[in-house]
Amino acid sequence: MAVLHYTLDFKLRAPADVSATVRGLQSIFQEQEMTENVHDSEGLGYLATFVGKNGRFAILRMHSHGLVTFDLQCLEGDDVAQVDNLLNALEKKLKALLDGNIQRIKRLPVLIRGSDVDRYWPTADGRLMEYDIDEVVYEKDSAYQNIKILHSRQFGNILILNGDVNLAESDLPYTQAIMGSGKEHYAGKEVLILGGGDGGILHEAVKLKPKMITMVEIDELVIDGCRKHMRKTCGNVLDNLKGDCYEVLVQDCVPVLKKFAEQGRTFDYVINDLTAVPISTAPEEDSTWEFLRLILDLSIRVLRPGGKYFTQGNCVNLTDALSEYEMLLGRLSCKVDFSKEVVCVPSYMELWVFYTIWKK
Amino acid sequence: MAVLHYTLDFKLRAPADVSATVRGLQSIFQEQEMTENVHDSEGLGYLATFVGKNGRFAILRMHSHGLVTFDLQCLEGDDVAQVDNLLNALEKKLKALLDGNIQRIKRLPVLIRGSDVDRYWPTADGRLMEYDIDEVVYEKDSAYQNIKILHSRQFGNILILNGDVNLAESDLPYTQAIMGSGKEHYAGKEVLILGGGDGGILHEAVKLKPKMITMVEIDELVIDGCRKHMRKTCGNVLDNLKGDCYEVLVQDCVPVLKKFAEQGRTFDYVINDLTAVPISTAPEEDSTWEFLRLILDLSIRVLRPGGKYFTQGNCVNLTDALSEYEMLLGRLSCKVDFSKEVVCVPSYMELWVFYTIWKK
Repeated sequence: MAVLHYTLDFKLRAPADVSATVRGLQSIFQEQEMTENVHDSEGLGYLATFVGKNGRFAILRMHSHGLVTFDLQCLEGDDVAQVDNLLNALEKKLKALLDGNIQRIKRLPVLIRGSDVDRYWPTADGRLMEYDIDEVVYEKDSAYQNIKILHSRQFGNILILNGDVNLAESDLPYTQAIMGSGKEHYAGKEVLILGGGDGGILHEAVKLKPKMITMVEIDELVIDGCRKHMRKTCGNVLDNLKGDCYEVLVQDCVPVLKKFAEQGRTFDYVINDLTAVPISTAPEEDSTWEFLRLILDLSIRVLRPGGKYFTQGNCVNLTDALSEYEMLLGRLSCKVDFSKEVVCVPSYMELWVFYTIWKK
Repeated sequence: MAVLHYTLDFKLRAPADVSATVRGLQSIFQEQEMTENVHDSEGLGYLATFVGKNGRFAILRMHSHGLVTFDLQCLEGDDVAQVDNLLNALEKKLKALLDGNIQRIKRLPVLIRGSDVDRYWPTADGRLMEYDIDEVVYEKDSAYQNIKILHSRQFGNILILNGDVNLAESDLPYTQAIMGSGKEHYAGKEVLILGGGDGGILHEAVKLKPKMITMVEIDELVIDGCRKHMRKTCGNVLDNLKGDCYEVLVQDCVPVLKKFAEQGRTFDYVINDLTAVPISTAPEEDSTWEFLRLILDLSIRVLRPGGKYFTQGNCVNLTDALSEYEMLLGRLSCKVDFSKEVVCVPSYMELWVFYTIWKK
């Protein structure tokens, strides 16, 4: 059973008269039959907690620097009208008591804590996002990662790997961006996809009549989940691991890339759609950066002259990570050049950088 | 000064042994010199509050149905490393104590309450969103509304009217959608824009060489703010209220529409870019729906045969509001048909519906 956590904050222009305000609010808590407990806050304003019926619990704090915070936690299934009444009555009374001294009133959407379906998936730059998720469609722990497919009312099913939003059925702009934003000619070309277990790139690339697509995805359970629950993304390309012009190898891409490099096998396009955090079993990966460099170096080795390497970068706000990646591009065993593009991927809720890289 | 509010929740598979768990955690609070206060929670599990140094305040609750919630509130400027230590120590200890019984551990990004720059702007369907806002660029109360322009690191400046995210400098997809998604020919046409004070539509429409654009925006302070702080959106079109092929009337659009209808003046395109909640002074507007109908009826009256009326609808999740709007379209004084399109507007963080409406 979830806990609903309501907040109501009054930011003031100047410290308020604590005792008058507290006195003015007392009748509200009494009407709600909440038992008050005033805590010693060591001279830092007023702090009281209130225990009410049905497990309701509230905290009222008047900070001496001029901020009033109110928290109300109650159990899912509690009487919503009563809870609303309390919050409305408190807001109205505080408005009256603090009249003229209010800079901002903020009542955030209720925080839902411990529910069966978790709606909070932060952005890559660590911001709080509440998704419109109403169902857990698929959840498995593979040998490599935790795999979830959650249903969003607006975005369709969303693939979440180890807690990171990977791709939703709404996110064709991601797939288009990581394929070169429609500016490349795939017809007759040889394509290598690293990762890509959701099938989105494979599905779009097959339509463009390439000569051959090789996809190397380490995690069969990702493919299994997406085959069933991400049909808008993968169509029917994952129904068989082999098609007219494609083959899916369920393997770690590092040894595969090494083998291709040794064999002198090359590709027109290499698309790196691996997860941000490495899950390969390659021993070289001391760190994420070393792994990225390993993949890049190997990929550039299997790239034909005139070929292109596509990859997602990061959210635009993680400027340090983006700079570090670009510095890494200058330290590869083979000289490369790159361009980048900022794209809005619907379910990411933050702008994302994509790279195109080629041999100099 | 803001209050930082941290949460740490453990969702359990089965109710935990409360006394053993609480005993196991005690040393952590003692080390942090936090004074415990156990509350009577009327048989609904365990509830304790802790007052610590520098105004720190914590709540530990072990719900009898198998959920542990922990809240820690501290003041902005508190020692982040110490706070992190407490949360990390608590998470580690709880993991050990509840080993095998944990379904989910959730630590949300910190809630920042009462800061100078408010980062929380919920979606139209009421979900909690934290924007990467770092500066209040413009704030005015006009005769009609509260106007804010806030700076987002990724979206550029964002116009917020009465607490509603209206448009960011990143949001060309909004402007393109409300102009017919590039499928219309504006050259030589007569265009009427209702609202549109940010100048985005005017800026894009002027480039398409129409015969004449008339824009009717009620709020001069919106124009003033956007002229200075939304240059990526409006370019230089708001520098003067009259240009070669456009005129901006700073007026309530209702009497203007009535005058145009009486005069028999007509337009090829009418673009309704008014705010969702009416701020017109027209006496007819008993409700939002009546206002919408009034604007629609008047707009259709000034629409040439073959002309089109464009407007934004709502977020895709507010299906009731969308249905009601479509029902309204069936009850206009003149028969109309419509089409709709779902568009991803970067700063909205939810998918948005746009309508094209024409006389049958």
